[in-house]
Amino acid sequence: MNQIKNIVFIGAGNVATQFALAFKRAGLQILQVYSRTVNSARVLAEKVQAEHTTNLKSLNKDADLYLISVSDNAVEELTSQLSLKDKLTVHTSGSIPLEILNKVSVNHGVFYPLQTFSKSREVDFSNIPICVEANSAENLEKLKSVAKTLSNNIYEVDSEQRKVLHLAAVFACNFPNFMYTIADKILRDSDIHFDILRPLIKETAEKIQDVKPAEAQTGPAIRNDEKILSGHMEMLNDFPQLKELYKLISAEIQKINPK
Amino acid sequence: MNQIKNIVFIGAGNVATQFALAFKRAGLQILQVYSRTVNSARVLAEKVQAEHTTNLKSLNKDADLYLISVSDNAVEELTSQLSLKDKLTVHTSGSIPLEILNKVSVNHGVFYPLQTFSKSREVDFSNIPICVEANSAENLEKLKSVAKTLSNNIYEVDSEQRKVLHLAAVFACNFPNFMYTIADKILRDSDIHFDILRPLIKETAEKIQDVKPAEAQTGPAIRNDEKILSGHMEMLNDFPQLKELYKLISAEIQKINPK
Repeated sequence: MNQIKNIVFIGAGNVATQFALAFKRAGLQILQVYSRTVNSARVLAEKVQAEHTTNLKSLNKDADLYLISVSDNAVEELTSQLSLKDKLTVHTSGSIPLEILNKVSVNHGVFYPLQTFSKSREVDFSNIPICVEANSAENLEKLKSVAKTLSNNIYEVDSEQRKVLHLAAVFACNFPNFMYTIADKILRDSDIHFDILRPLIKETAEKIQDVKPAEAQTGPAIRNDEKILSGHMEMLNDFPQLKELYKLISAEIQKINPK
Repeated sequence: MNQIKNIVFIGAGNVATQFALAFKRAGLQILQVYSRTVNSARVLAEKVQAEHTTNLKSLNKDADLYLISVSDNAVEELTSQLSLKDKLTVHTSGSIPLEILNKVSVNHGVFYPLQTFSKSREVDFSNIPICVEANSAENLEKLKSVAKTLSNNIYEVDSEQRKVLHLAAVFACNFPNFMYTIADKILRDSDIHFDILRPLIKETAEKIQDVKPAEAQTGPAIRNDEKILSGHMEMLNDFPQLKELYKLISAEIQKINPK
């Protein structure tokens, strides 16, 4: 089995950027970065000493791996324009099935990192779960092997499970982040700085590194403290959607622990 | 101004336990622990080498500080039975006004830690915001001084602001924790272990230690990825409340970033 030593990146967003930086640090070569936007392509290419292009027809044909990391909406259009024959090609999406790459190459897979990325915040990949899937045992081994250069947490996950994971990740990451945003808004309306909440947010996430989240639940809803619950909802009278949200979530929390 | 050197604890729950352990580590003496439940009183008293009692009439009368840390529902009943004359008395609640202690003692205040506690998980107090309020400048100084033995983050917060903080903390801590619980449930239904989400949860909370949460928002809702949003809602068809929750939160996230 030939090891993957160099990669062409198709896409230059948050996920592509963090993968490219991490592969570079792990000693692999990034041959080329493609993006529709010349500036995005150039910025990432410069970071990892690669060439860049905005033309799919000029893709370097000699890479061991083609990593497609564009928005879910763009994957379908992009794959219809790509023909990489037998070149190992992966996408990084949580929600798109493996089969979308059938027409792109006979060798294909998925390389899905279960993490939230920004372009600017460099992340330590060593603990990031990387979910791999491939259309053959050999391709799977290749992907697992290259994944291990980045992380100690490699999972074999099929397309159905990956969809479930993506949904769970929305609840575990995107929705909590929005709850932080609501808290920030509530504080700003009373001229209190968000800083005061940061240690609480950190501890809330650290606490469930050891225990199950249902066991870590605290607050007025789990205590069935109706007085506080109704007081809080009254405070949200000017924000009907937030009030509805408060009511709905609290009612669900109360179901964990029926009186 | 006399420094606070010893404390009587009224209550032996999560908050009382963590405060008692932290004060003990900081070199203060815990004279006595009161709880309605003899076992709770004894367990905490043994941890901090204090006496214990279940009888309010046997409260030690010589402490520098009386710290009332019971559930919000119990505070009112308890304070109606307590008469501590001029002894400095505080409660630790986010939602109860200072004035509830008027009848308990002429010297009173609030000592509200903005953190989530369990009995068993020992916490590092040094970064925990402690919100203090008192009925006189002298009492406020005493409370700030004793708070500084525990933490570097002391805030003067009045009763109105404290209520706002408590509401914000529900959004910043209790609701994200419940989102983790939903994620856990979704994974369990597909036989996937919650472990795979833990690094994501940790990074989500760490990310907003530096940036504003609205800037850290990722996921299908902020990208207006309607295909994924409707796919996720379809996956939740068997759980109408969770589906409603998904819909409501996603719609609010989309408002951050109108097309």
